[in-house]
Amino acid sequence: MSSETPFQIIKLDLKNILLKPAKHVREVKLSDMKEFFGDVNEAEKMLSAGKDPVIYKYCEFEASDVFGDMVVGLTVIYPGKVGREYFMTRGHFHERDSGEIYYCLRGSGMLLMQSKDGKVVHAELTQGNLCHVAPGWGHRTINTGRGRFIFLFFYPAGSGHNYGIIKEKGFAKLVVAEKGKPQVIDNPKYVAQQ
Amino acid sequence: MSSETPFQIIKLDLKNILLKPAKHVREVKLSDMKEFFGDVNEAEKMLSAGKDPVIYKYCEFEASDVFGDMVVGLTVIYPGKVGREYFMTRGHFHERDSGEIYYCLRGSGMLLMQSKDGKVVHAELTQGNLCHVAPGWGHRTINTGRGRFIFLFFYPAGSGHNYGIIKEKGFAKLVVAEKGKPQVIDNPKYVAQQ
Repeated sequence: MSSETPFQIIKLDLKNILLKPAKHVREVKLSDMKEFFGDVNEAEKMLSAGKDPVIYKYCEFEASDVFGDMVVGLTVIYPGKVGREYFMTRGHFHERDSGEIYYCLRGSGMLLMQSKDGKVVHAELTQGNLCHVAPGWGHRTINTGRGRFIFLFFYPAGSGHNYGIIKEKGFAKLVVAEKGKPQVIDNPKYVAQQ
Repeated sequence: MSSETPFQIIKLDLKNILLKPAKHVREVKLSDMKEFFGDVNEAEKMLSAGKDPVIYKYCEFEASDVFGDMVVGLTVIYPGKVGREYFMTRGHFHERDSGEIYYCLRGSGMLLMQSKDGKVVHAELTQGNLCHVAPGWGHRTINTGRGRFIFLFFYPAGSGHNYGIIKEKGFAKLVVAEKGKPQVIDNPKYVAQQ
């Protein structure tokens, strides 16, 4: 296969968190993902008080959805918390067994990874470093810093995303502030389902 | 599939051009790739005079070779020329139809892309920008600047590399200095083979 448009230069706009060109641009607000936070009551309280902050924004460049082609995306997670829990992405599994690589451009945060049988590990990601996530592991990114946490991510096109498992069952762990520092603790709701 | 080692933090060492950890680290000298330059006589003259510069260095992090897992690599191409032709990588085709994404960290250069039927396009890559290369296109990177040209590259594991086609036939175009500026010209040797 030789595509007619063999390449695309993609410009990075870190101020507006945009890839140019970008195929998907999405802002995710608290109201879009309140069920993903451990303390849903606190999320609802914020929303009732008229607070619906943008939790994160991302965009992607995807030339095709053929498995083995490449996608690059850019994400910012804003600093903030819902109760004690840091702002984070919803997290997802790939539908196909594909890996992913993150490259941290600004700030710092955590990657929470979970296998389909509920094993959880976490990694700290700081500016200028990369993280490889193996196929088969669901992943969520969390802003544990004071500024914006901005990273690029790279994965094979056509991998597919499954957000449902996480929405339904959550992650087995939560990342919360404990005396101003991030702590990885058991998710009481997840444990209760077992 | 859930791997037992679901993640790896990878540190970037731009001074020594190393990913830590890295699986493949390789310096490619003029003597390793003299056939790849258009002016092989000039390459041999340099080598006879005891000049065997490192043209480029790269390393890769590869957790597995399962197609769909992800590889990240780091390359520096040093500034310099063989005759009028800029220092460059050998270039290769992937054995499987997989894409690749480049992210330029320092300097500037060019990407030369060639289809299997000999169509050639080129793109300029400058610091802070990305370039997507579609599946099926062979690719070579060229340092057309005055300093080091350093970039990250991302592609699906298990893609395989074919250097032979390029070694045998070359690229249909060369990138040479013309009054101090890069020009893309026909490769006389390639044309002669048709």
